[in-house]
Amino acid sequence: MIPVELIKKKREGGTLTEDELRWLIEEYVSGGIPDYQMSAFLMACFFRGMSEEETLTFTKLMLHSGETIDLTDIPGIKVDKHSTGGVGDKVSLILAPIVAACGVPVPMISGRGLGHTGGTLDKLESIPGFRTALSIPEYKSVIRAVGAVLIGQTNEIVPADKKMYALRDVTATVECIPLIAGSIMSKKLAEGIDALVLDVKTGRGAFMQSYDRSLELAQTLVRIGTGFGKETVAFITSMDQPLGSTIGNWLEVVESVECLKGSRGKGDASSDLMEVTHVLSGAMLMLGKKAGTIAEGVALSRASIEDGTAFNKLLEIVAAQGGDPSALENLERYPLPKHTMEVKTMERGYIGAIDSLELGISSITLGAGRARIEDKIDPKAGIVLAKKVGDAVEGGDVLATFSTDKDEALEPARERIRAAFRIQSAPPKQKPLILSYVEKGGVKTWM
Amino acid sequence: MIPVELIKKKREGGTLTEDELRWLIEEYVSGGIPDYQMSAFLMACFFRGMSEEETLTFTKLMLHSGETIDLTDIPGIKVDKHSTGGVGDKVSLILAPIVAACGVPVPMISGRGLGHTGGTLDKLESIPGFRTALSIPEYKSVIRAVGAVLIGQTNEIVPADKKMYALRDVTATVECIPLIAGSIMSKKLAEGIDALVLDVKTGRGAFMQSYDRSLELAQTLVRIGTGFGKETVAFITSMDQPLGSTIGNWLEVVESVECLKGSRGKGDASSDLMEVTHVLSGAMLMLGKKAGTIAEGVALSRASIEDGTAFNKLLEIVAAQGGDPSALENLERYPLPKHTMEVKTMERGYIGAIDSLELGISSITLGAGRARIEDKIDPKAGIVLAKKVGDAVEGGDVLATFSTDKDEALEPARERIRAAFRIQSAPPKQKPLILSYVEKGGVKTWM
Repeated sequence: MIPVELIKKKREGGTLTEDELRWLIEEYVSGGIPDYQMSAFLMACFFRGMSEEETLTFTKLMLHSGETIDLTDIPGIKVDKHSTGGVGDKVSLILAPIVAACGVPVPMISGRGLGHTGGTLDKLESIPGFRTALSIPEYKSVIRAVGAVLIGQTNEIVPADKKMYALRDVTATVECIPLIAGSIMSKKLAEGIDALVLDVKTGRGAFMQSYDRSLELAQTLVRIGTGFGKETVAFITSMDQPLGSTIGNWLEVVESVECLKGSRGKGDASSDLMEVTHVLSGAMLMLGKKAGTIAEGVALSRASIEDGTAFNKLLEIVAAQGGDPSALENLERYPLPKHTMEVKTMERGYIGAIDSLELGISSITLGAGRARIEDKIDPKAGIVLAKKVGDAVEGGDVLATFSTDKDEALEPARERIRAAFRIQSAPPKQKPLILSYVEKGGVKTWM
Repeated sequence: MIPVELIKKKREGGTLTEDELRWLIEEYVSGGIPDYQMSAFLMACFFRGMSEEETLTFTKLMLHSGETIDLTDIPGIKVDKHSTGGVGDKVSLILAPIVAACGVPVPMISGRGLGHTGGTLDKLESIPGFRTALSIPEYKSVIRAVGAVLIGQTNEIVPADKKMYALRDVTATVECIPLIAGSIMSKKLAEGIDALVLDVKTGRGAFMQSYDRSLELAQTLVRIGTGFGKETVAFITSMDQPLGSTIGNWLEVVESVECLKGSRGKGDASSDLMEVTHVLSGAMLMLGKKAGTIAEGVALSRASIEDGTAFNKLLEIVAAQGGDPSALENLERYPLPKHTMEVKTMERGYIGAIDSLELGISSITLGAGRARIEDKIDPKAGIVLAKKVGDAVEGGDVLATFSTDKDEALEPARERIRAAFRIQSAPPKQKPLILSYVEKGGVKTWM
């Protein structure tokens, strides 16, 4: 086969055969097809898309570019959750212990921060000693021992995606539904799951800003999961403001711990976070056959916080992955950032909107994320929101505080964070946080 | 500037500013932007195109990526011709001596064979000793001495195009009008021309197979030339069958010599070749102010063959560029190919069509072109057509003969060449060879 002919075929809107896709992916991984041909192919995919069957085949071939983990010898229905990425989205840190505490094993391979969004791995690594780079035998032994495991992508798993993702990131070929779907689902299918719950973010802080595109992605993901014989459901949730009250790695761990301990998450700035977490956990418990319905699952999820089993499970997971559980029991011992600064408003009114894209970018300038792949993350850096959408404010009120070790970041961040809050005279119309529920059978509005 | 942001801007249908395009081209030439980002950008251009102004700016920046040759100290209006490439298109070899013989200097920078089409440089290099790699001072001294010069692209001229063209060829981003136009026009503008005649090929053997796309390309080229203050006109000519009777480098030199000597080109299989040549020469003589109209120019062109001045000019050019003119006066001394084989038909009827794309590819398999960039060309290899579209045939008639040194190419080539001739019972409808004439003022049907 000739690479340029395959690029041309896609460019002209054609559908590649399984043999063509296999050859393309294999040659790319082995170095026979250079990056410059793959990036032209990916851009052609951006414009031409892929057929349903082609997307399924693409996912399968990506999956088979590496090892798949076999968890059949671990009892129970293994269920994972994947989010398409948002700002302040620390759901995995709270949900994995909840679901494991309720008896459903959670094998989770997560990513790092990407663009303006944070990554579960970076958050976990802010816990002293926590190791996310486990070998496959270690991964299996942790899930067997404690019922949940949270690691990063290994070299064995979907190497084609690892290479292709890095290329997409620098060639403006990320926002393509079949490529996103193939990338997500190949990694999830390689983990050894039996079922999957997806959280497809929509809105200003998400990669898919429009609802229609988010729905298309959710439907594609559900179709692929189902096509591989894994029960798969998806929620479309709003990323019109950051989730919860913190953005930044250790800050998000602290918020997660407080939510798991029940001291936050009800009637405060973490309420939206816990609403999403409980619904996703509820769906996982349903798929894991511990609950008959999502509502029953939500009740179990809430109970695991009340009775302390979820928080204890987090401590077990942390210990099993080399982390220091006492750091989570003594949050005040963590090193302090050099600067902590308040952002105040002089206006009076209501918070109409909080631009999560802008706050995501601001948190990177503070050191909480990477502007370049080689940048080191400062786990202490980040933003704590004092107000959320709908809150009333008076002149002089604090909107947020932020922390950083970087002197030069202070003033620009203050400006940028201040500008991310839109203050208006009337209370904003309440918008739903969870918009839709997508399953094999169709789409439902969530209420 | 961030490359991925520029790729994204084009991907979303935006228009790049002059500063953005300049940065992109400069960084690409200097290696700051890797091939994989440029190829994604080029594919985005394929889908999104460029605005008129953007195309003009792109051409200007490509032009200024290298040196431009100043021919103002050489008397006369310097006029060149450029063809978008076809099969059997040896017009430059005949036209350059004609126009120079008529007193209009012809500075010509040509290319090599590309895809299924031949290249003027490869044809010239089949003449023993002929050098196409002249330095710029040599280039100027040849045109000053003999009135025409035919060379290849040097490292000094439009280096951005040299690098980008190689990339486009392997990433399926060739067939994009603004990129084609920028590539052609930047090189032509760098030559030192005052005016330009374009031959935009259309049909099965051309890069632009549809008339509408060919017209769009012709109009874009004329607009750019005019925008740079160079009088530019274009013809759209048919590439529905090969031009003239030969395909292959030395074979095409022989046909050109015979046409220049007047022993071929009237009422024979070279008639179409000479019709196109005379019209293009006529237009060049008009732009060079040696004729008031194209028709007057055509008359001068024909006269230069009758009186032998055109052929003598070819001998002068060959001698000035290091070639052996006696090889052209003693064509029979050239080495013979190992095999020469006839392709016959068993049918009776009329030639309805000759697939020039197929014949172009066949000639490559014989050794007349390159399948890979590193392949060496066999100048003796190629195809001679015995029949052209509209000719009547009987069973047993020879359709073509072909020559090669490659034993293994014989049988496949015979099949392929045979299949390229479509024979039908009724005479085909006569189609015009020269379809349209495009100038600044508009488009005219050519009659």
